[in-house]
Amino acid sequence: MKKVLIAYRLKEEGLRELEGKYVVTLPREKSYFTKQEVMEMIPDYEVFVPNFSFYTDKEIIDRGGKLELISNYGVGFNNIDVDYATHKGIAVTNIPNSTREPTAEFAFALLMAAGRRIGYYDRKLRTPEGVSWGVYAGGGLPVYGKRLGIIGMGRIGQSLARRAVAGGMEIIYHNRSRLDPMTEEQYNARYVSLDELLQTADYISLNAPSTPETFHMIGEKQFQLMKPTAVFINTARGNMVDEKALVQALKEETIWAAALDVYENEPHIHPELLALDNVLLAPHAGTKTMEDRISMSVEMVQNIIGFYEGSYNISRVN
Amino acid sequence: MKKVLIAYRLKEEGLRELEGKYVVTLPREKSYFTKQEVMEMIPDYEVFVPNFSFYTDKEIIDRGGKLELISNYGVGFNNIDVDYATHKGIAVTNIPNSTREPTAEFAFALLMAAGRRIGYYDRKLRTPEGVSWGVYAGGGLPVYGKRLGIIGMGRIGQSLARRAVAGGMEIIYHNRSRLDPMTEEQYNARYVSLDELLQTADYISLNAPSTPETFHMIGEKQFQLMKPTAVFINTARGNMVDEKALVQALKEETIWAAALDVYENEPHIHPELLALDNVLLAPHAGTKTMEDRISMSVEMVQNIIGFYEGSYNISRVN
Repeated sequence: MKKVLIAYRLKEEGLRELEGKYVVTLPREKSYFTKQEVMEMIPDYEVFVPNFSFYTDKEIIDRGGKLELISNYGVGFNNIDVDYATHKGIAVTNIPNSTREPTAEFAFALLMAAGRRIGYYDRKLRTPEGVSWGVYAGGGLPVYGKRLGIIGMGRIGQSLARRAVAGGMEIIYHNRSRLDPMTEEQYNARYVSLDELLQTADYISLNAPSTPETFHMIGEKQFQLMKPTAVFINTARGNMVDEKALVQALKEETIWAAALDVYENEPHIHPELLALDNVLLAPHAGTKTMEDRISMSVEMVQNIIGFYEGSYNISRVN
Repeated sequence: MKKVLIAYRLKEEGLRELEGKYVVTLPREKSYFTKQEVMEMIPDYEVFVPNFSFYTDKEIIDRGGKLELISNYGVGFNNIDVDYATHKGIAVTNIPNSTREPTAEFAFALLMAAGRRIGYYDRKLRTPEGVSWGVYAGGGLPVYGKRLGIIGMGRIGQSLARRAVAGGMEIIYHNRSRLDPMTEEQYNARYVSLDELLQTADYISLNAPSTPETFHMIGEKQFQLMKPTAVFINTARGNMVDEKALVQALKEETIWAAALDVYENEPHIHPELLALDNVLLAPHAGTKTMEDRISMSVEMVQNIIGFYEGSYNISRVN
């Protein structure tokens, strides 16, 4: 039987399909194995399952002499040195299906909440200072009738577009490659350059993968291009944005607001962000519901079974 | 020239069409006229414009001996004694068009934010206590795949349904009268009794008008019928819900969460609500963006001009 090492205490109900066919090790007494613990155990295992916050680097891969598969519990795989895994002949898979709807849902929820100031109201109403109940003071920005620029128009980006269209938004997008005309038509989406997107969108959502090429793709220059009324949403990965430049743009009101689910040094949030009223903050919770997190386990398990038994299509990233 | 008394200092840019054709009085030095001030001035005016928080009662109507029209700055008109106005031969209008999309947008934003815990995260991340970044702890509820029960399937309810369908929700609704089959089909919406709605919906949104019949229509008995995982959203009017029973339901976790834009005694919010983590609070901000509030003025003005000149269709409520 193949041996599977899971670094996080995932719920049993998402792992049932492995029972009896694979030897599964996962933490029982605590939430996760440390890097040290993984280093000690990994030489015995053919399959390793990190979650998105566990860095699977050269050292771990080198130590896993029997490794055949890294089955990531996450859709983003910037936590894995994929190039090195490929070099060592190790397959890497991710879970795009179970994460698509929850992440797009969270992105749209953050977008609407930031525009309409829902986090701000809830927070301020609970302080002695309160908020104005008058007709105009402290109001938000409409979503309906506004232009959404989606950077990264893959599965999550398109799922966000579907919601945004129903919310009365116009869609523009930038992507490594242009979508086929039928898909564009489905969302009435227009392909534009990154600069045009930044300059003309009212809401800007980052939905691209984190790669060496997208590191700090949004920085001071990009915030300067945005409208002063722009709302910036990041549910992708923190390292794609220069967080210092973002703090500066919010403090100086170069843009109107931001909504963030991801950060450069999670779980650390830049202390100035915590003090700003024009940012909405979430703790990397894009897929954080019990149902979705269990569906993610099921998809992760199907990648393992599909890899060895061919009974499922798997999502390989290398 | 007809004389128009506006109780709130609405922005000039929404009132331009009245210029030169009507004599317009509105507060210049402060935000609103008090009841006393309105009582002093109203005998001279043919048209009165209250906003939704100004109670236009028998006393005011009796004092307005020349009144021909009350052009409400709001879609809900529970702030006006419409029966008495009718009895006195005074027309009453409201503004359903400019308020539809912003209110439905706000309702959906609250729904998503409450389910996915966006207000909670933003608030807690800014406290020393913080929130868990783990895989499961403190997660929310999905929206995608869940059933939305809409109470009051008029214009706002349908506009909410459009967004919810794109968000992957199934729609059930209760209404005074059943919709035509084509409209039902548009949202794949199923008409059910109020009790069935309360018992089977995952999210329940109140979008009916406030009338004597809907006063406290949601109380202890109704909360008891809901699922323990239900999320209740009210963007309609506070007096349709027994606020004490709602506080109890949230404290005892009879339901999972609520999101509220309206309250029984605005701008007063029940102090226990302010202390609860499973409620999301907004300050009657359903239409609160500058653009929407100006569009509302334009529609309110068109009701006046349409009433006297016939050049616009008007929304009469009596």
